[in-house]
Parts: sequence; C-alpha cells; structure tokens
Amino acid sequence: MMTLYGYWRSSASYRVRIALAMKGIEVKHVAVNLRDGAQNEAAHFARNPQGYLPVLELEDGTKLTQSLAILDYLDAIVPDPALMPSDAVLRSKVLAASLVIASDISPIQNLSVLKYIRSDYGADDEGVTKWVRHWIAKGFNALEEIAETRTSKFLYMDEPGFFEVCLVPQVYNARRFGVNMDAFPHLSAIDAACRARPEFAIAAPEMQPDAM
Amino acid sequence: MMTLYGYWRSSASYRVRIALAMKGIEVKHVAVNLRDGAQNEAAHFARNPQGYLPVLELEDGTKLTQSLAILDYLDAIVPDPALMPSDAVLRSKVLAASLVIASDISPIQNLSVLKYIRSDYGADDEGVTKWVRHWIAKGFNALEEIAETRTSKFLYMDEPGFFEVCLVPQVYNARRFGVNMDAFPHLSAIDAACRARPEFAIAAPEMQPDAM
Repeated sequence: MMTLYGYWRSSASYRVRIALAMKGIEVKHVAVNLRDGAQNEAAHFARNPQGYLPVLELEDGTKLTQSLAILDYLDAIVPDPALMPSDAVLRSKVLAASLVIASDISPIQNLSVLKYIRSDYGADDEGVTKWVRHWIAKGFNALEEIAETRTSKFLYMDEPGFFEVCLVPQVYNARRFGVNMDAFPHLSAIDAACRARPEFAIAAPEMQPDAM
Repeated sequence: MMTLYGYWRSSASYRVRIALAMKGIEVKHVAVNLRDGAQNEAAHFARNPQGYLPVLELEDGTKLTQSLAILDYLDAIVPDPALMPSDAVLRSKVLAASLVIASDISPIQNLSVLKYIRSDYGADDEGVTKWVRHWIAKGFNALEEIAETRTSKFLYMDEPGFFEVCLVPQVYNARRFGVNMDAFPHLSAIDAACRARPEFAIAAPEMQPDAM
C-alpha cells in the first residue's frame, strides 16, 4: 500500500486526496503537522528536499513530490476515470487552467511565503490576509472569465478532472481567508457540483483524522 | 504558422522558445513589451485573461497559455525528441523537478509580485533583489540535492527534456539577479551542457529581436 504524507488543510495534499478517491486507490495517511513545523524536520527533508507536502511514497519506497506530478502519475497507473482529456488542445487548456491555481495562486500564498512577508517585509495579520486575497482574486478573475463560456457543469470536461481537483481545494482556501466567492459564480457552481460527490466529500479537510 | 506572443527576458517565453527549437517548429514571434506594460492592455487580455506571457496562437486562432501546458501540447503534436520519459514514475519525477521551478520559484518572482511587494509591502530595490534571490536559492537548494545523484549529463533523461527547458531560463534569471551559481555546481553543469546546444542557443534572450 502507498503512503501519503499530507496535512488536512494543505491545498496540495487535498488535491491528491481527491484524485486518490476518484481513482479508488486506498493509501496509508501520515500527517505532517505544518503548524508545528514538522515539515522542517530532517525526517521530512529526507522524504522531500523541498520540505513541502504532499509526498506519495510508493510500495518500493520511491517518493513522489509536487501534487500535479503525483496526479499525473495516478492518471497513468489508473487511467479510469481519466483526469485529462485525450485531445491535445483540450488537454493543454485543462492543464493551463490548473496551473493558474497550482502555479500562480497557491505557491504565492504558501506558508513559507506568508512567513517571509511577515518576517522580512513587515506584514502583520492584516497584511498577510490582504496578500492572500489579492493573489486568489487575481487568479480567480481570469478563471471566472474562462468558466463563463463553459458548456458542461465542469470546466472543460463532462466529469470532474485535473482542473476540478485543483479548484476545490483553492475555493476551500479562499473561503478560509474570507474571499467573497459571490464574485465568482461560475467557479462557485463548479465547486458545488464537485463537492456534492462522495469522492470530493471524503477528501475534504474536515474529514481528515488530523483536522483540528 | 503558429504565433508566439512573448518577451525576450520572460522565463516562461524562453521555455517555449527552447521547446519550439528542439521540436523544429517555426513560429511567428510577436513581442509584448513587459517593461512598457503591454501585457496590461486590452489587446493582450483578449489573448489571455491572466494578462501573462507567453501565448501560443494556433493556426485556427486557438490560444494556448501557461508555458508548461504549451510544452505538453508541443510534445503531443511533435513527439520526437520527447520532452518526457515514457515511464510513469520517471515522468512524475521530471514533472516534479520542473514544477519546483515553474510553480515554486518563477511565479513568486513574477513581475506582478515584485511590483506588489514594492507598492504595498514597502520593498525598495534592495528588498526586491533579496526577495528574488531568496526564492531562487530555496528552490535551487532542493534541485541541487536531487541533481547530485544523477547518472547522466542531464537530470533524469539522457538528453535535455522538460526539466532542462525549465532550468536554463531560471539559471539565466538567477544570474541576472546576482545569485551565486557556484553554490549549485550540478545545476550549473546541466545548464552549461544545454546551452552548448544550438536549440538552446537560438532561444536565448539576447538572440531575440526585441532584446534591448
């Protein structure tokens, strides 16, 4: 059995939990407590030289990192249901929309960045919240424009896929930081349609044993 | 013929230029001057609702965004030389290393982020330079550790691929911001081996018509 090192409120861990549930893959869950700094301990750096979550450890001990690279692996080993469309253009579009979240929103509000603007750029609690909301709104504005023209309940595919796996954790995070989701009705509708499904529901942060 | 909207010194544009050269695909190049703010004009937002570069416009007018999603498309339409290995684990590792650059370094030092720490978090020129160097060093430290155990001239593959396409522009950018690359001998060696090849050389920023 594979082992997922994650944290209940980590967006990237949440992405992988959803994909595992969609693919019907059971794993052993090990919590790495980000708030206690467990990701900065030698034991975790031995798993991932970046010190980030999640890490998926395969049965042979191979450790996979970076949530999108883990999703790519899961889609290769369990092709059904497919996270990606087969058409090259559509696949590129799904990946691009996913990267708006996974490259241009999420890393800029990573815990390490929030700590750094606090320690070295004088941000207080209000400054940190403003920062997070700014980058979420910037990315969501672009995605909302893309989502307005969709022809399915989801973004580009008839069923939830790679993009939705990225979206739902980011919307959870947006709500946590007080972003007004009423400004993003199309993204909110996609999020709601996903969360109504059991594979998204059981992956939710509050359903994890380490949730506090 | 496809059209690439890019900018000579944009890392993400540079990635796509390298991949196009590797695949032997000729495109029309259109410069969008980031320093003049041309990416914030309506004409560019019509191409990409994020207002970012690059954008690859296909012959039928379809616009692809996000450099990694464009690389994925190019690898699908021209499979040889392959940017990715076929083995699922190795592919995941190549993608993970690429994402250390494309998610955890590059977006945090995007021009829009540097402007925001200047306008709203009081960073001066020195503060901006410190910021950029901090995130490059953090990511490169992890990648250098991974690269130490490599068995080829490149990271995971026998020839340059997806990771190297991301690495070379990031090393160019690191040098521009005064990062001491002596601290990263393995990454420097991979970078040098790539830059000795014509497909990397012609994609270099200083070789572009809009270089200033």
